[in-house]
Amino acid sequence: MLNIAITAGGTSEHIDGVRRLTNISTGLLGWYCLETILDYFCAEKRSDFHVTYLFTETAFRKALDKEQLPFVDFVPVTDAESVYHAVDALTKSVPVDFFIHSMAISDFTLAYVASTEELAKEINSLPYSGDAGATVREVLENPENRYSLTEKIPSDHNIILGLRRTQKVIPLIKRNNPNTFLVGFKLLKDVPEEELIRVANQLAGENGCDMVFANELAQLGESNHLGMLIRSGKVVDRPIGKKQIAEAIVREMMKQGGNK
Amino acid sequence: MLNIAITAGGTSEHIDGVRRLTNISTGLLGWYCLETILDYFCAEKRSDFHVTYLFTETAFRKALDKEQLPFVDFVPVTDAESVYHAVDALTKSVPVDFFIHSMAISDFTLAYVASTEELAKEINSLPYSGDAGATVREVLENPENRYSLTEKIPSDHNIILGLRRTQKVIPLIKRNNPNTFLVGFKLLKDVPEEELIRVANQLAGENGCDMVFANELAQLGESNHLGMLIRSGKVVDRPIGKKQIAEAIVREMMKQGGNK
Repeated sequence: MLNIAITAGGTSEHIDGVRRLTNISTGLLGWYCLETILDYFCAEKRSDFHVTYLFTETAFRKALDKEQLPFVDFVPVTDAESVYHAVDALTKSVPVDFFIHSMAISDFTLAYVASTEELAKEINSLPYSGDAGATVREVLENPENRYSLTEKIPSDHNIILGLRRTQKVIPLIKRNNPNTFLVGFKLLKDVPEEELIRVANQLAGENGCDMVFANELAQLGESNHLGMLIRSGKVVDRPIGKKQIAEAIVREMMKQGGNK
Repeated sequence: MLNIAITAGGTSEHIDGVRRLTNISTGLLGWYCLETILDYFCAEKRSDFHVTYLFTETAFRKALDKEQLPFVDFVPVTDAESVYHAVDALTKSVPVDFFIHSMAISDFTLAYVASTEELAKEINSLPYSGDAGATVREVLENPENRYSLTEKIPSDHNIILGLRRTQKVIPLIKRNNPNTFLVGFKLLKDVPEEELIRVANQLAGENGCDMVFANELAQLGESNHLGMLIRSGKVVDRPIGKKQIAEAIVREMMKQGGNK
């Protein structure tokens, strides 16, 4: 039995009841990976596989054929923290063979919202100290005067959003399942190809990715989305278009261990 | 000839190449208003009308019938500033008879992104002054040490987002077209009905809304979305469900001046 996991879409961090911190991920690439995997096992006439599909609210989805449904579990997630818990739970309960981690997970979540004016007052009321500024920083990290996160933020003053880093999800995967074949994704902006390859290799090294799809922000269109599939530090494919990227990923992935 | 304008969806403010400040608006209510208007004129066998539909990328849309297309201009917008300019241009060039302003427009846009640590250092390097704190506030509004808005924000430090208020769009409408019949929307959270009515009347008074649909955040589902249609300070209808809300709005609107 092959266990496959896919994450898709972009997370959404709660700011107040109506406002959100989001990103541009559409979830299309993850969806095409799912379709390609279902097609692959259908063509091979195999039913010894199962896919867990973690997706966010805005991620692209469409109806699957009725015969395909039993092979897929759909798991909805919302913000970075919910993805962390879902991936941790999944990788602790299932020996995942292949993990395609295409979700764009927010690096930051909301720590507080404060009125700029009130935050300035709070800092000004600090006792003067000539030291390295730990106190001002403490206020900036965690002010007393802030809006309640359950109210709708009033719109009559300029505001400050304090954001703190979220826990990285990707290191969990190999930590919980060292034998997983892990496909990571790296999106950078305005960097030359060598730098993109260097950063992709770094991601692979730090988080145990067996393969990384690396791409550049200006090259993200559905039909002309292009990037490099990198394995053991080498570019093994340069697919163009999201569907072709998904096919290249699944093809390379299945070369290794598709018969487990 | 009747000129009708509808705004629908939620705006998205750019943070960096991949991150966005958005809101939960789906654009469904605006879309149903469009459908209801097209049905109304079709039933009346009238073709002396035109709709300008301003929508954001995430706003719900579907294909219209071919016969309906000539009656609608679709105008895409992105952030609060783009809506401001689009509404200003429209209301200066066309004598809009009915304006349904259902778009959720961000009250804030990005002023800057800074590392919390660097912002603390910058404040600490200010000369000490016992005054009301204008200087700290100036740094909080406009720090020197900030990330370039064209780069992808690094994820290795906590960050501060400085947000400044956007220009309100709704006052433009009657300023440019005093004879427009203007329908406004008010969404509040956790307030009793009397407070919702009071705030809706205030919105009507300040911006010349002839009618306001007022609703509460916990009551927003598609089929059970409920709220109050308020005209001249009085609740004239309490429709339940987004489609029914759209029908109530268009019905009340057309009672007045539908034969212009």
